[in-house]
Amino acid sequence: MRNLTDCPEFQQLADLRQDWPAPLTPATIRDQVARHCLLHFSYAGYLLSPEIRHALQALAESQGVIAAYHAILDGQAMNTSENRVVSHHQTRGPNRGFYGKEQARADHFADGVRSGELHGAFSRPFTTVVQVGIGGSELGPKALVEGLHCWALTQSTLILETHFLANIDPNDFARIWAQIDPETTLFITVSKSGTTLETALNLGLITQAMTDLGWTAAQSRQHLVSVTMPQTALDDPTSFRDRFYIDASIGGRYSGTSVVGTLLLSLVYGPVVTAEVLAGAAALDENARLPDCTHNLSLMAALLGIWECNVLGCTARAIIPYSQSLAAFPAHLQQLDCESNGKSVNRDGQSIDYATSPVVFGEPGTNSQHSFFQKLHQGPELVPIQCIGFAKPYASSPAPGAAHDALLASLVAQLVAFSTGQAHSDPNKTFSGHRPCSLVIAPELTPQTLGALLAFYENKIMFEGFLWNLNSFDQEGVQLGKTLAQDAT
Amino acid sequence: MRNLTDCPEFQQLADLRQDWPAPLTPATIRDQVARHCLLHFSYAGYLLSPEIRHALQALAESQGVIAAYHAILDGQAMNTSENRVVSHHQTRGPNRGFYGKEQARADHFADGVRSGELHGAFSRPFTTVVQVGIGGSELGPKALVEGLHCWALTQSTLILETHFLANIDPNDFARIWAQIDPETTLFITVSKSGTTLETALNLGLITQAMTDLGWTAAQSRQHLVSVTMPQTALDDPTSFRDRFYIDASIGGRYSGTSVVGTLLLSLVYGPVVTAEVLAGAAALDENARLPDCTHNLSLMAALLGIWECNVLGCTARAIIPYSQSLAAFPAHLQQLDCESNGKSVNRDGQSIDYATSPVVFGEPGTNSQHSFFQKLHQGPELVPIQCIGFAKPYASSPAPGAAHDALLASLVAQLVAFSTGQAHSDPNKTFSGHRPCSLVIAPELTPQTLGALLAFYENKIMFEGFLWNLNSFDQEGVQLGKTLAQDAT
Repeated sequence: MRNLTDCPEFQQLADLRQDWPAPLTPATIRDQVARHCLLHFSYAGYLLSPEIRHALQALAESQGVIAAYHAILDGQAMNTSENRVVSHHQTRGPNRGFYGKEQARADHFADGVRSGELHGAFSRPFTTVVQVGIGGSELGPKALVEGLHCWALTQSTLILETHFLANIDPNDFARIWAQIDPETTLFITVSKSGTTLETALNLGLITQAMTDLGWTAAQSRQHLVSVTMPQTALDDPTSFRDRFYIDASIGGRYSGTSVVGTLLLSLVYGPVVTAEVLAGAAALDENARLPDCTHNLSLMAALLGIWECNVLGCTARAIIPYSQSLAAFPAHLQQLDCESNGKSVNRDGQSIDYATSPVVFGEPGTNSQHSFFQKLHQGPELVPIQCIGFAKPYASSPAPGAAHDALLASLVAQLVAFSTGQAHSDPNKTFSGHRPCSLVIAPELTPQTLGALLAFYENKIMFEGFLWNLNSFDQEGVQLGKTLAQDAT
Repeated sequence: MRNLTDCPEFQQLADLRQDWPAPLTPATIRDQVARHCLLHFSYAGYLLSPEIRHALQALAESQGVIAAYHAILDGQAMNTSENRVVSHHQTRGPNRGFYGKEQARADHFADGVRSGELHGAFSRPFTTVVQVGIGGSELGPKALVEGLHCWALTQSTLILETHFLANIDPNDFARIWAQIDPETTLFITVSKSGTTLETALNLGLITQAMTDLGWTAAQSRQHLVSVTMPQTALDDPTSFRDRFYIDASIGGRYSGTSVVGTLLLSLVYGPVVTAEVLAGAAALDENARLPDCTHNLSLMAALLGIWECNVLGCTARAIIPYSQSLAAFPAHLQQLDCESNGKSVNRDGQSIDYATSPVVFGEPGTNSQHSFFQKLHQGPELVPIQCIGFAKPYASSPAPGAAHDALLASLVAQLVAFSTGQAHSDPNKTFSGHRPCSLVIAPELTPQTLGALLAFYENKIMFEGFLWNLNSFDQEGVQLGKTLAQDAT
């Protein structure tokens, strides 16, 4: 693997800049789709010529990105700066080992809670779960749990109420505490190291509030479980009725399919839902092995990321889920992308001099159309847009036809507007078009397709990291602030 | 007013790029603060020399931005493309006229609801309000209402439960309908034109659901009010028990201090809270009249926006409120900024060739530190960070000392890390520093300081628009998508 700008294939790609944009034709729309049974990725809106597509494939081969992915799956220490393996694919892979064992424990515990067999200190069943954790311990799990809430409403299944407590701001605790009945609430405290400042402080607020209610330590313990590495401060059977384990080889932002995300998921919706999320993710991990980028969805998306960032010079990317259920998904992708690849040092620890991870941002469509889309359509800067859509509404949705049809019509209208623009005699009503856009579309938002979406983006970002010759699995950039804050307190 | 790059003062400013960054000294930290009794704006982290500050002031004078603001206040048609006046300052100004009358009606109605005198069709008091609206009818009001929830918890005041229904996705309705008791819920339908597609469709879902419950039209009417322009489809006394009016001279994104935001605010927390929000906003409108940018907070912030965008070449700006209560504030600012100034055509309808509104994004601190701050600290691209902080916790906060101290320590640590960086023998642990950052700080998050914050940003964006020679008050870039979607449905 070389620095991106040292690859002759990158130079060839950059030379093709002059061919861009190619016209959008019905043939392009038909051909420029990478298909998987769970997701389709349509990239006709990038307005690529066939030569550019070939050059993208050549770049992928030159950087050996598929071999690098296999090295991850084979357990090589691909987190180079920390000399660690990268294990998150294993949480949903064919040989889950340690992760499978912990998943089974989490599912067993969740079944007990959901049946009422495991209950709080006052013999009342748990109705509410609060996930206490920050960064990857919040964002991925929140994207998954909130992503499935409306789906679950259409099933005849028990749904536990869910809250997320992350911020060290004491108002975050106050807001949540005011909404719950502690006697029917289970708190999951999540910190890999067991020492995360925010999480430790929030755990302290929770136990203090329990004490203030007159609970004994034994009673409080009945409402607390932890997710952590073995032998940390949170691996304490005197304080937590159960502990579930992760290890150092999964970064927080990649931990959604470990017990960091799946204990919560199994508690809230049941273990069957978790199994489907994992199956969907595993299916996209399989797809990511394919060497041909026209079949490998994540790889094609990653190559387009390089095209937009390092050839077109874009510095931001908008992710627009046309689904209110995915309102929390862009914040997860923002962390996944910016924390993985927002770096200026390559895998060998040397400085690089080309652009990496753009700013990732997004809000649901159609809401975002009434907000920042003005800039995306008519701003001087080119900001690529990736929309996420679902072909079918839930059968039991209110007015499923009219509302969902209008949602999809809005999505398609935006893609057309971004790609083709509109000429007008008044410059203020002119749309230049030629704005790169793409669509990730699934038949329906279900546990399986949501798992697939999660893995699609994880793998996309992994491939982008390889193409940029970055280590996407460390996060030195967050250390200095932590040190300075701890020195101050 | 000229195009930015045609101002000789801009060229002088650009020439000072070579002096940047200046060293951060105790004197800079002390001097580079614009002070108002409700807010301080500290910009020492922009690492400006005194020469740059003088050149910024010269640019403001050259573009006549204070005169242009006075033209708005004097009722000149400063929305040039639509030939309209720009009235949002009047909603909180000394002569509120029409807006004051509507505010009084809204407050009277809210008092009736809060006392229980005005109730639903089944003689039960209203406990819940759903604001049905999209874009500016959701984002600003949501930032205000959610921003004050924890403050209200510390007061002994009635708080009505609040939900926001915006998206055309029918799951948005399903999610909210599952959480409320319709018999105790009041729905505010907000659409200036009365024809917003999403809002009309959601209103249809609501009335259908009421019909499905067996309610008569007269019973449903008891649960519906509207905010709209006179004589639109929503100005219908047969469907709405009351109607509150706005007019065409306030754009959606600027309507938070009109009845679009304040009817809700008065219902949820009471009219006294609304009055304080308006007073805070009015105080910053007054401050924005000051010609000297070292005293005019919004003007200084706007000038720094030009500096970062057009001299340093930054294409994004992060807004980080160190307050979980302000979690919804960045999405409001994203609309306010990108929809106002994400444009390529000047006030005279001619194309311009320089950068305007960067991508605005943000999540609360400390959460964001555990997410995309990696990129902000160590990414190749310079992304200016603006933090918002509050000096004091609420007196009744849980563990007010420890948690709030840790929150502030984290904020300060980040500003130090961004400004000064850290040398290290390992490039992967090196922080370049010299990343522009600033701080907007208020004594405490209250209705008055939140109103001040809102106006600070509105006025900042207005001044940036003047400096860029843009009309910040139209939004032609959202029209094409609307037309195409309506053609398709």
